[in-house]
Amino acid sequence: MGRITSRRRVTRISVGSAPSRREDVLAVEEPLEIRVGGTPLAITMRTPGHDFELAAGFLASEGVIARSEHFGAARYCASTTPGGENTYNVLDVTLGPGVAAPDPSLERNFYTTSSCGLCGKASIDAVRTLSAHPVRDDALRVPAELLVTFPDRLRAGQDVFDKTGGLHAAALFDGTSGELLVLREDVGRHNAVDKVIGWAVTNDLLPLRGMVLMVSGRASFELAQKASMAGIPLLAAVSAPSSLAIELAAEIGMTVVGFLRGNSMVVYSSEERIVATEAAEKVTA
Amino acid sequence: MGRITSRRRVTRISVGSAPSRREDVLAVEEPLEIRVGGTPLAITMRTPGHDFELAAGFLASEGVIARSEHFGAARYCASTTPGGENTYNVLDVTLGPGVAAPDPSLERNFYTTSSCGLCGKASIDAVRTLSAHPVRDDALRVPAELLVTFPDRLRAGQDVFDKTGGLHAAALFDGTSGELLVLREDVGRHNAVDKVIGWAVTNDLLPLRGMVLMVSGRASFELAQKASMAGIPLLAAVSAPSSLAIELAAEIGMTVVGFLRGNSMVVYSSEERIVATEAAEKVTA
Repeated sequence: MGRITSRRRVTRISVGSAPSRREDVLAVEEPLEIRVGGTPLAITMRTPGHDFELAAGFLASEGVIARSEHFGAARYCASTTPGGENTYNVLDVTLGPGVAAPDPSLERNFYTTSSCGLCGKASIDAVRTLSAHPVRDDALRVPAELLVTFPDRLRAGQDVFDKTGGLHAAALFDGTSGELLVLREDVGRHNAVDKVIGWAVTNDLLPLRGMVLMVSGRASFELAQKASMAGIPLLAAVSAPSSLAIELAAEIGMTVVGFLRGNSMVVYSSEERIVATEAAEKVTA
Repeated sequence: MGRITSRRRVTRISVGSAPSRREDVLAVEEPLEIRVGGTPLAITMRTPGHDFELAAGFLASEGVIARSEHFGAARYCASTTPGGENTYNVLDVTLGPGVAAPDPSLERNFYTTSSCGLCGKASIDAVRTLSAHPVRDDALRVPAELLVTFPDRLRAGQDVFDKTGGLHAAALFDGTSGELLVLREDVGRHNAVDKVIGWAVTNDLLPLRGMVLMVSGRASFELAQKASMAGIPLLAAVSAPSSLAIELAAEIGMTVVGFLRGNSMVVYSSEERIVATEAAEKVTA
């Protein structure tokens, strides 16, 4: 297994002070090629660790697998350094019996349909058609007081960020009990989400009803798509969502919360899932 | 041309206060398919605007073009809404005379070579081989006092971020005069960098000797790769770099500065380009 952090001598410079040398810790970034049945499907730049989950989450996000038995087996293969050591950067997944191999032109399926050119609407239609887990009818109701505790708990769980300042994080919280189920970090935020969803699919937890997917950065279309494919009813982000993420969410009935910071948030869609209990003894009008 | 921002009714919730409804502005995210001579090459989720530059920068980053005449022409094509309107999401580039069409498996070229399996070292070798613009011999020297002014000036130029809080930015600064040459925003940070490099290549400014590429987020391998392909000697980021970005930079002699905030920074490679003038009347040792 590859390293998650690496060390390097760096120079810290502050204007008006003498430069200081010290050792710094960097988040490792290495390519991972995901193959299915020997056929290369995707290459992503990721932080090593939880690679099987990353592959499983990627395949679940693309609609290829939905249960642990679909994942079959996975092994590192085929890729060695000049010295003959395994790079642990090529992962071959054997799908379970009866699971159809993905189309190698997977990327195109999500963005184009025959009824329309390449546009946001077509991307939304593709996700809606592929997703087996409707989130519109998920009865989750989350008190605002509970939701505002998630960012600090996400941050507290970021071991590698603490050392490097350089990683995205994603976590699953139970929207009712507030329990943190799983947290993953990665240089790529889509990878962090894939690792979380991969953990869930290999533990046969899909669809993730009643769950909140919390991410450390922004909420893009890609992250909303992944949440949709896993049946997650609520996507919460520390930063802003994009227009297309919200259009998808509005269409499928997913709640998206952005700018979740301090004790406040902005709710962009399906706001009925956020219960804002107004303080009874509030003084100001 | 598509919109850059869109409006939506949202609900702002602060714990202990009454929820308030207001109109919010979102950064638009839409797919863009880049074709070359009619053949689809890549799809990226981007913020509309400066699409020709985005395509030119992408092609320059991949080593397909290096001068404006290589870019030939570009036109929106082939993609219409059900109502028959152009989506402006498919761009077909006609390369200049004699320019070889890119390999459709472009992605793989950057990550694998025959001498080694899939690993960071192979990725670095691929960039080093492809890049026509060595940065090691660039004589740029930047005073730390000048460099620390760049983040605020980057932030000040982010028109769309001001409205949405949701966009990455990239800008080119002249490392000697400090002049801001170009600034671009996008939901994807690699797209913001492609737009900047596309502006430069279509204005025949490559290699970008003596220039600083300033980015609003982290410095990943992909951004260091793009800077390398454009001959940029100094990559400066507000946040952390990844291990592989620094390994590439160290190998090719590019300066990478991270955590450029307030009046300080961390220099990860080729620190000779940063001139730290110590305050003469400093009191403390």
